[in-house]
Amino acid sequence: MKQLFLISLLTYSYLFAKEPIPTIPQTIEYDKKKAKVGMMLFFDTRLSKDGSTSCASCHSPEAGGADGRAISTGVFGKKGGINSPTVYNSVFNFRQFWNGRAKDLAEQIDGPVHNPVEMGLTTDEIVEIVNNDSNYRAALKRIYLKKNITYEVIKDAIVEFEKALITPNSKFDKYLNDEVELSKPEKKGYMKFKRFGCITCHNGVNLGGNSYQKFGATIPLDRPEHIDDLYARTKIEDDKNKFKVPTLRNIALTAPYFHDGSAKTLEEAVARMSYHNLGFKINDKDINDIVAFLKTLTGQEPRILTNGE
Amino acid sequence: MKQLFLISLLTYSYLFAKEPIPTIPQTIEYDKKKAKVGMMLFFDTRLSKDGSTSCASCHSPEAGGADGRAISTGVFGKKGGINSPTVYNSVFNFRQFWNGRAKDLAEQIDGPVHNPVEMGLTTDEIVEIVNNDSNYRAALKRIYLKKNITYEVIKDAIVEFEKALITPNSKFDKYLNDEVELSKPEKKGYMKFKRFGCITCHNGVNLGGNSYQKFGATIPLDRPEHIDDLYARTKIEDDKNKFKVPTLRNIALTAPYFHDGSAKTLEEAVARMSYHNLGFKINDKDINDIVAFLKTLTGQEPRILTNGE
Repeated sequence: MKQLFLISLLTYSYLFAKEPIPTIPQTIEYDKKKAKVGMMLFFDTRLSKDGSTSCASCHSPEAGGADGRAISTGVFGKKGGINSPTVYNSVFNFRQFWNGRAKDLAEQIDGPVHNPVEMGLTTDEIVEIVNNDSNYRAALKRIYLKKNITYEVIKDAIVEFEKALITPNSKFDKYLNDEVELSKPEKKGYMKFKRFGCITCHNGVNLGGNSYQKFGATIPLDRPEHIDDLYARTKIEDDKNKFKVPTLRNIALTAPYFHDGSAKTLEEAVARMSYHNLGFKINDKDINDIVAFLKTLTGQEPRILTNGE
Repeated sequence: MKQLFLISLLTYSYLFAKEPIPTIPQTIEYDKKKAKVGMMLFFDTRLSKDGSTSCASCHSPEAGGADGRAISTGVFGKKGGINSPTVYNSVFNFRQFWNGRAKDLAEQIDGPVHNPVEMGLTTDEIVEIVNNDSNYRAALKRIYLKKNITYEVIKDAIVEFEKALITPNSKFDKYLNDEVELSKPEKKGYMKFKRFGCITCHNGVNLGGNSYQKFGATIPLDRPEHIDDLYARTKIEDDKNKFKVPTLRNIALTAPYFHDGSAKTLEEAVARMSYHNLGFKINDKDINDIVAFLKTLTGQEPRILTNGE
C-alpha cells in the first residue's frame, strides 16, 4: 500500500513536475512608438485593392484575433482558401501561415497584402497609400528617421504592433503559477490532454505553433489534400496534409476550427483530432473534460487603446 | 516674527490644502465590448466621403489625441476652421467643441462626420458603410442585440471607446498623491500658475474644459472674431471670442496652441495668454517655470491594443 502510494506520488510528480507548457510572459519587448503607427496601419482598410479589407478584417480583436469564419473573405468579397489563424501570440510561432511558408511576422505580411483574394495590392501601391497620408508620413519619418517611407518601414511598424498582441494571465497560466486552482473537470482534462497524447504536438508556450504534423497521422483523412499544406512548399509526398500545429491559446474564442474551418465546435474538433491523430474514438466524458481544460487557455486579451480598465 | 511665520504657514496651507485640481482617475466605467468595436470605427477611414479621413486623422494617438496641425485637414484635403482639440480626457469636459455646441461625446460625433470639410457623410451613408462590413455588422448585432445597426448604435460604440481615453498618472497627479516630488522649477511654476491667476479658468480635473472664457478678457485681441466662438451659437455680443477653456492635460504633446493654432510653443502660449487674459507682460523666468509645471501634466497615454507593456 505504501509502495503504491509512493508510485502514485512519483507518477504524479512526473506528470506535474516539469510542465511541458510555459506561461505566456506578462510583457514582451517592442517599440511602442512604431507599434502605435503599426496599430493604425493594421486597422486601415485603405491598404487593400477595394478599400474594404484591413489586417484586422481577418484578425480582429472582436474574434480572438481571427475572424470567426470558416474561410476568410478578402477584397471584392472574394473567398480565401484557408481558415484565418489568430494573430494573438503569433510572435511565439516558429514560422507563420498554416504551412509555415513565412519565417517570421515581417515575411508573413507579404502574403495577405499581395494576395489577390485578400488585400491585393502591389508593394508600390502600399507605399503610395501610406505616403499619401500625411499623418502616417509624418509619424513614420519622425520615428524611423528616414527620408522615404519604404515598404520595409511599413511592415516593420505593423510587426512591432503584432509582437505586442500577447495574451498572458489565462486561468491555466495562473494555475501553472500556483495562483489559482483548476476545477475538477479542467484538471482531469489537462491530465487526459497529456496522457492521451495531445501534448505530443500541442506543447510549448503556444501549445502548438512549433512543429509540422500530418492531419490524419494515424487514421488518414478521407478527403483531398489541401492546397496550402506543407506539400505545396516542399513537393515531398509525405508532406501532404501536413500543417503547422495551430496554437490552442484562446481556442475557445476562435471557432470554427482546423485549416478548413470544418469543425464548428471544440467538442467536434477534439473528437475528430483524437480519431485521426491519436487513433481512437474518444468518449463524451473525455471530450468534455478536455474542452473544459481548453477553455482555461483563454488569456487576457490585448487592451484596447484605453486607460479605462 | 512668530506672527509672520504663522501667516506664512496659513498662506502656505491655504495654497496647498485643497488643491483646485483633482487627479485623473485610474479607471473609468465603460463597456469594453462596445469600445472594442468603437475603436475600430474610430480608426476607419471609410467613414468619410473620400475614404481618407477617420476620427483618428485629427485625434491621433501619435499626436496626444490631436493632430499636430494648426488647423485640421479633412476630406479632399480641405482645411477646417479650427485647431483640433485632444480627444484624451474629453469625457471630463462639460461640453464638447471649442464653443461647446455639443452637450456630450455622442452629440459631438455629429459634427465632424457630417461636416463637408471634415468627413462629409450623411447619416444614411454612415449606416450603409458600417452595415456593409460583415465584421461590424456581426459584432454590433451581437453586442447591442439589435436587428438593425442604426446611426445611434454606431455613435454609442465610438463614445464607449472615447470614454476610455483617459490619461492618469501624470507627474503632477503623482505629486498630488504624494508619490513623487516636483522639481524646483515645476513647483514654482505651479505656485505661479495659481498666484498669477491661470487657475481661475484652468481648474478642475482637466485644468479647463469646465467653463467659457473670453480670449482677451483683460486686453482684447487685435484680430477679428472667430467663426466658431460662443457668439456663433448665442449671438450675444459679449460672447465674441469666448471659447470653452481648453484642457491643459497633456498640453506638451499637442502643439500648436489656441483655437486657431497660432501659438507654436508653450512659451508663446503662456506669454500671450498672460498678456491678454491676466493683463501683464510675464517675464521669461516665470514663463519657464510655468512651462515646467505644464510639462508635468503629461499623463499615461492610453495603451495601444497590446499586452506588451
